[in-house]
Amino acid sequence: MSSTIFIQTPFQSKSLNKSLNTHFVPSFKLPVSLSFKPRTAAFSKRVHIRAGLIEPDGGKLVDLHVSEPERELKKREAASLPKVKLTPIDVQWVHVLSEGWASPLTGFMRESEFLQTLHFNSLRLDGGSFVNMSVPIILAIDDLQKASIGESDRVALLDSDDKLIAILTDIEIYKHPKEERIARTWGTTAPGLPYVEETITNAGNWLIGGDLEVIAPIKYNDGLDRFRLSPEELRKEFERRNADAVFAFQLRNPVHNGHALLMTDTRRRLLEMGYKNPVLLLHPLGGYTKADDVPLSWRMKQHEKVLEDGVLDPETTVVSIFPSPMHYAGPTEVQWHAKARINAGANFYIVGRDPAGMGHPVEKRDLYDADHGKKVLSMAPGLERLNILPFRVAAYDKTQGKMAFFDPSRAQDFLFISGTKMRTLAKNKENPPPGFMCPGGWEVLVEYYASLTPSDNDRIPQPVAA
Amino acid sequence: MSSTIFIQTPFQSKSLNKSLNTHFVPSFKLPVSLSFKPRTAAFSKRVHIRAGLIEPDGGKLVDLHVSEPERELKKREAASLPKVKLTPIDVQWVHVLSEGWASPLTGFMRESEFLQTLHFNSLRLDGGSFVNMSVPIILAIDDLQKASIGESDRVALLDSDDKLIAILTDIEIYKHPKEERIARTWGTTAPGLPYVEETITNAGNWLIGGDLEVIAPIKYNDGLDRFRLSPEELRKEFERRNADAVFAFQLRNPVHNGHALLMTDTRRRLLEMGYKNPVLLLHPLGGYTKADDVPLSWRMKQHEKVLEDGVLDPETTVVSIFPSPMHYAGPTEVQWHAKARINAGANFYIVGRDPAGMGHPVEKRDLYDADHGKKVLSMAPGLERLNILPFRVAAYDKTQGKMAFFDPSRAQDFLFISGTKMRTLAKNKENPPPGFMCPGGWEVLVEYYASLTPSDNDRIPQPVAA
Repeated sequence: MSSTIFIQTPFQSKSLNKSLNTHFVPSFKLPVSLSFKPRTAAFSKRVHIRAGLIEPDGGKLVDLHVSEPERELKKREAASLPKVKLTPIDVQWVHVLSEGWASPLTGFMRESEFLQTLHFNSLRLDGGSFVNMSVPIILAIDDLQKASIGESDRVALLDSDDKLIAILTDIEIYKHPKEERIARTWGTTAPGLPYVEETITNAGNWLIGGDLEVIAPIKYNDGLDRFRLSPEELRKEFERRNADAVFAFQLRNPVHNGHALLMTDTRRRLLEMGYKNPVLLLHPLGGYTKADDVPLSWRMKQHEKVLEDGVLDPETTVVSIFPSPMHYAGPTEVQWHAKARINAGANFYIVGRDPAGMGHPVEKRDLYDADHGKKVLSMAPGLERLNILPFRVAAYDKTQGKMAFFDPSRAQDFLFISGTKMRTLAKNKENPPPGFMCPGGWEVLVEYYASLTPSDNDRIPQPVAA
Repeated sequence: MSSTIFIQTPFQSKSLNKSLNTHFVPSFKLPVSLSFKPRTAAFSKRVHIRAGLIEPDGGKLVDLHVSEPERELKKREAASLPKVKLTPIDVQWVHVLSEGWASPLTGFMRESEFLQTLHFNSLRLDGGSFVNMSVPIILAIDDLQKASIGESDRVALLDSDDKLIAILTDIEIYKHPKEERIARTWGTTAPGLPYVEETITNAGNWLIGGDLEVIAPIKYNDGLDRFRLSPEELRKEFERRNADAVFAFQLRNPVHNGHALLMTDTRRRLLEMGYKNPVLLLHPLGGYTKADDVPLSWRMKQHEKVLEDGVLDPETTVVSIFPSPMHYAGPTEVQWHAKARINAGANFYIVGRDPAGMGHPVEKRDLYDADHGKKVLSMAPGLERLNILPFRVAAYDKTQGKMAFFDPSRAQDFLFISGTKMRTLAKNKENPPPGFMCPGGWEVLVEYYASLTPSDNDRIPQPVAA
């Protein structure tokens, strides 16, 4: 069984820090799958199922890692190259690019890709077809760094500990039009956008694009790397499970029973549509998130409890971490969230109210119209092959004492429990109505808020690649 | 000859206010062309050439006018409908829509079209292909107007004199997300964008989309209506001239000899490419422009002089007014300028430095990168059929005493005469270097600036539909 990627055993309590005794396994890279020796029967099944998985954008999943034998050579080469220092979020983007989540992108965007992303949310391929690409994946450098690069056509990318991460080749340096980038990506330039303040405001005035040669798979050594399955690993897992439909659920919040109802109901609908084995990709976002979001490690603990308590069926659920940083760019970003999941093999995408949205940083309103996300997603160039499944609103049904789909004809029976309400209850160590969330999951939230000192509310550490 | 649309005689001096004694004729609508009785030879040629003109977007040129016999019926119907008052700029957009410049749009955008425009600068057609559409063509209403419409599925659109302009049918009312619209269209939300201040800041919080039934062709009665040829009239004119290539030049400034050189040189290049009869569409923008642009009537006088002085060849030049208002939205707007010209039959589009750009309203820099316009244009979805001809920079060659293409190997021989410099010279009644602009054209500019009182610099009247 060591050659399989995902072990179908019930979720083990407290197993998150034990690396193999779960139905998650470490995020092995290619060598594992290359050494996988299929039995004939399994192989023929796999071929059959492989045909069923959606093709990655551009037809081929990008893998930007240098091969093991090349590594030393690349390290020696890098020693003589101009150096560019990466922020932790830059490293998260290298991670995203290296595994092909942004296929067919082969590195940080050059100007042509950047402009197409800003203006069209899509990239034109040779041959004239489009793939979706809605958020710029770019690397900023300042005047000094630009000067130090001089005429070199490649640079070495180092993390904050000066460890070599990658070489960027055939580079192109072009202006970083910050205001325009922000306006076109977020639809506002109001001060206080988290990703903007974290990564753009103080970034350099230049962008450097090029092709990536990533020295080694990105690891964070935070106990969660084994949840970080690459698109290729996820595809293998779906094939191993004989999935004939994969439905992805992006989340960056604790799972409550309303979510669970939605996911269970989606599977039921897919079975009704004639699919034999729809598999859920429960795919929490693992990169940068804003300070008042629940941190990844706590969310993963909470998700574990939810599976443990039987709210979701481990047989038909794959939990994995999506390594992208979060933009909070609403209708623009939800396209990225969907597109990346195509590359991981998902052909159905669940979209809710106000996806990737947040409150307006200055005005007292939501930044985006709550319905624009799903509308834009359903119209987006390059996402034609993806089936969009709009969320039905779930709320707490007081007559049943559980989460249920909202029935407007008896609105008075329902209670809407907002994120703010949920946080307030958890902070005060109060319980939500029974049936809102499984008790184990709720305890994790209470524990998380109890662990915060008041000042932590402003500064919550993010995972940093190690 | 009365059945032809354009008479090929040399440009007559002072002819702008005489309606038939020029090589421009009144902007006749369909009845004229329907009564056109082709000779067999001409017809076969026309068929041949018709095949040569680029197809309008969506395959068919939209015409939103009600037929003459229907008019009275529509007027009676309108009397009982809720009313929406149009601004002069709204009427300009009705004009644009009515003649099919925005084909295949059939009216003010509904939310689906609005969102696709904002996010993708393109509209998906049934069948999956895209047409370009980069600026929202929308109609704003306020809370009161929305309330007055109630449950009606159609409204009457009136101009500021309460004259019935059109009926809007199958209406859809949706929110007007002003900040997001501005950010995504202009790439900035800085205060001081002319179109924003003129049409958005004080506009209503709702948008009303629907299909237009336009009562009668829009006329402005400013002596210039005969220059306002519709896309259909332009196509007929190009066919009549046996054009096998049409190259469009959008402008909103006086023509100097650098422009003329460029246009003449483009024709030379097209002949070299094997075209037998390339025709220039010299197409000044006639809708709303900002206060410090030279007004349309003066520009038309200046263009007339330029043709009169033989700087451009009337035999191969069609001068007509493009009725669109100006956004000053740079790379976003230049796509609209190009797309509209496809609908008028142009298959080549000349694009210069910083098209549709302006200075940043707050910072001391240009709002857009001067090269982004042509780059974005060359990548834009839906413009694949259009040949983009980037501008070569012309400057005053002191050694030749005329405008010439800039030669960087002898940069010291060239003088760049900026728009600001030109305006200052004309305001001071000074002459530019000989060969910069034909004397007749320059006199018009001097005359225009002399006509201004200081306060006119702030408020210059725009054409208003009558």
